[in-house]
Amino acid sequence: MKFNIALLAGDGIGPEVIDQAVKVSDAVAKKFGHEITWQPALTGAAAIDAVGEPYPDATHDICAASDAVLFGAIGHPKYDNDPSAPVRPEQGLLKMRKKLGLFANVRPTFTFPSLLDKSPLKQERIEGTDLVFLRELTGGIYFGEKGRRDGGETAYDNCVYTRAEVQRLAKKGFELAMTRSKKLCCVDKANVLETSRLWRETVQAMEKDYPEVEVSYEFVDAVAMRLVQWPNSYDVLITENLFGDILTDEASVISGSMGLMPSASMGSDIALFEPIHGSYPQATGLNIANPMATVLSAAMMFETAFNLPEEGKAIRDAVNKALAEGFVTEDLADGGKSYGTKEVGDYLASNI
Amino acid sequence: MKFNIALLAGDGIGPEVIDQAVKVSDAVAKKFGHEITWQPALTGAAAIDAVGEPYPDATHDICAASDAVLFGAIGHPKYDNDPSAPVRPEQGLLKMRKKLGLFANVRPTFTFPSLLDKSPLKQERIEGTDLVFLRELTGGIYFGEKGRRDGGETAYDNCVYTRAEVQRLAKKGFELAMTRSKKLCCVDKANVLETSRLWRETVQAMEKDYPEVEVSYEFVDAVAMRLVQWPNSYDVLITENLFGDILTDEASVISGSMGLMPSASMGSDIALFEPIHGSYPQATGLNIANPMATVLSAAMMFETAFNLPEEGKAIRDAVNKALAEGFVTEDLADGGKSYGTKEVGDYLASNI
Ligand SMILES: CC(C)[C@H](C(=O)O)[C@@H](O)C(=O)O
Ligand SMILES: CC(C)[C@H](C(=O)O)[C@@H](O)C(=O)O
Repeated sequence: MKFNIALLAGDGIGPEVIDQAVKVSDAVAKKFGHEITWQPALTGAAAIDAVGEPYPDATHDICAASDAVLFGAIGHPKYDNDPSAPVRPEQGLLKMRKKLGLFANVRPTFTFPSLLDKSPLKQERIEGTDLVFLRELTGGIYFGEKGRRDGGETAYDNCVYTRAEVQRLAKKGFELAMTRSKKLCCVDKANVLETSRLWRETVQAMEKDYPEVEVSYEFVDAVAMRLVQWPNSYDVLITENLFGDILTDEASVISGSMGLMPSASMGSDIALFEPIHGSYPQATGLNIANPMATVLSAAMMFETAFNLPEEGKAIRDAVNKALAEGFVTEDLADGGKSYGTKEVGDYLASNI
Repeated sequence: MKFNIALLAGDGIGPEVIDQAVKVSDAVAKKFGHEITWQPALTGAAAIDAVGEPYPDATHDICAASDAVLFGAIGHPKYDNDPSAPVRPEQGLLKMRKKLGLFANVRPTFTFPSLLDKSPLKQERIEGTDLVFLRELTGGIYFGEKGRRDGGETAYDNCVYTRAEVQRLAKKGFELAMTRSKKLCCVDKANVLETSRLWRETVQAMEKDYPEVEVSYEFVDAVAMRLVQWPNSYDVLITENLFGDILTDEASVISGSMGLMPSASMGSDIALFEPIHGSYPQATGLNIANPMATVLSAAMMFETAFNLPEEGKAIRDAVNKALAEGFVTEDLADGGKSYGTKEVGDYLASNI
């Protein structure tokens, strides 16, 4: 098969880790007889510096015409302390999600047996954790009307959801649950919020279409607790944009494998794949960043966007082998021998 | 001194744990020469059953005329699975907060050395944790306009904050920080929300009035992570209503001492004190509920509402003694000898 993949390296360590994902994907393509054309495009602070905005139209056109988007990381310290600056990298992210229609953010949290000791949680709490959040990504309070009145003294943000928005996200949740343990948790704050009541009633009405799926409804504050207490009691969780932002990040640290966690953001036409870690500016150019989360994002891309599970598995096997053999960057080396970003990428590619 | 204390026992185990706090408070009053008049009043499901609403006017009048409110817990399973029922216990809670003007919810999370092994976190992560959240409690998306349009197909919730609301909460935060390690963290989502930008700019403008306080600004998703990773890196945190709901509950489980955590909700005229645990309906009437969180809430009441630190310390010392000697309810007994709710209350009172 032939694929056109938009390549958004972004800021900080983005370009370095993206390079390794390209290398590994190319090895996969070679092995399985596919042809990948990479289409690099500007985004984030790098795009602001070059053309004055974080998600330029030219980048959008490349993404919209691609079969999938592979994304590094964006964010730069020079924008960090001024959230009200006229142009910020985050705006590019939100614009990209909206314009590409990436309404479902898929955020798995799973454990690697060899990394359990890196978790802040006790081993018996974290063992066996394998959950996936589906976070709604193009609605809610992120995109509602916002502003000031009373001469700037009053600020407001409007949270809005339509039934159709809930349905398309929940549908993905039910479908995902069907491929896993058939357990779905709808996270909301239906005891306080009207949007949450819409979420809950919409999901309730969909239950009859998926009679095998066991659905539970939990308040966001209760989930924030149980994620720390018994993360392995969850399987698939669906939730709205802001709750998802908070809970997926909370979930990401419990496994001890944050540097390895991939993610996908899916729309009706296109999907984007990226590591969940940030741009880690202090490490830029030092060849120390862990490329595995980005490489595993490429695995998700093969599996989800191209429906090629074998190809994805080849990548996962290579990562597991490197972990088992200690061919890892310094963050995972426990003070022992470690390898550079590029060397780990080479090793993974050579094991495809 | 003479105190009039409104006593809202509520539902489930509320009455049982409240009884112990009354007993211990009376012992304190006797020892230090104070006179307490308790004013019982209905709230929660108990109030719905009796008079058809969860926060009756009669209860409000008693609270408004009191020197402080001591609260048990509310919530009953018969209301749990129907968040859109016309009358729910939670509505009483929100109405009470609003009518009493309880704008600042004070939620400490601290550790008891003897209970560290109950934490889901590894000991080295949790040791030394002693943080306090100040959660704004009468504004934000909880109280903004909410509803439906498009024949029910679209739901909305409006989040609104005024500068004055932020200032009065932040002022309490700065003042609290001055009595502790002089570190204050403002939690927001200023990279996305206009209300968060108002929070951040308001707190920034107040920094000059508290030159000794070191203020940091962190995004809510980052805090959700760091609370699990390095809870002991925080001291005082201030945040808006919804973020506070999620993060204080997350924080409550990390210490392993959730059954012991007290809280206060403060207004300009009146303050309310309650354990953070719920009404635990399954345990109702079994004399097994741990009364310590409610007893420690009474300690906070003496310290904060009545400005009587010695009296508060007498209660804390009694609790520490009971913990050290294993005079505890079964949740803390590790399978060893345990005592009933009432017996623990008696023991605490006898040690004042
Ligand atoms: C940078 C920010 C706007 C973004 C979000 O909140 O969605 C980030 O936290 C994320 O989760 O991808
Ligand atoms: C019951 C609910 C309305 C309430 C809230 O969200 O404020 C509770 O979770 C709390 O934190 O006291």
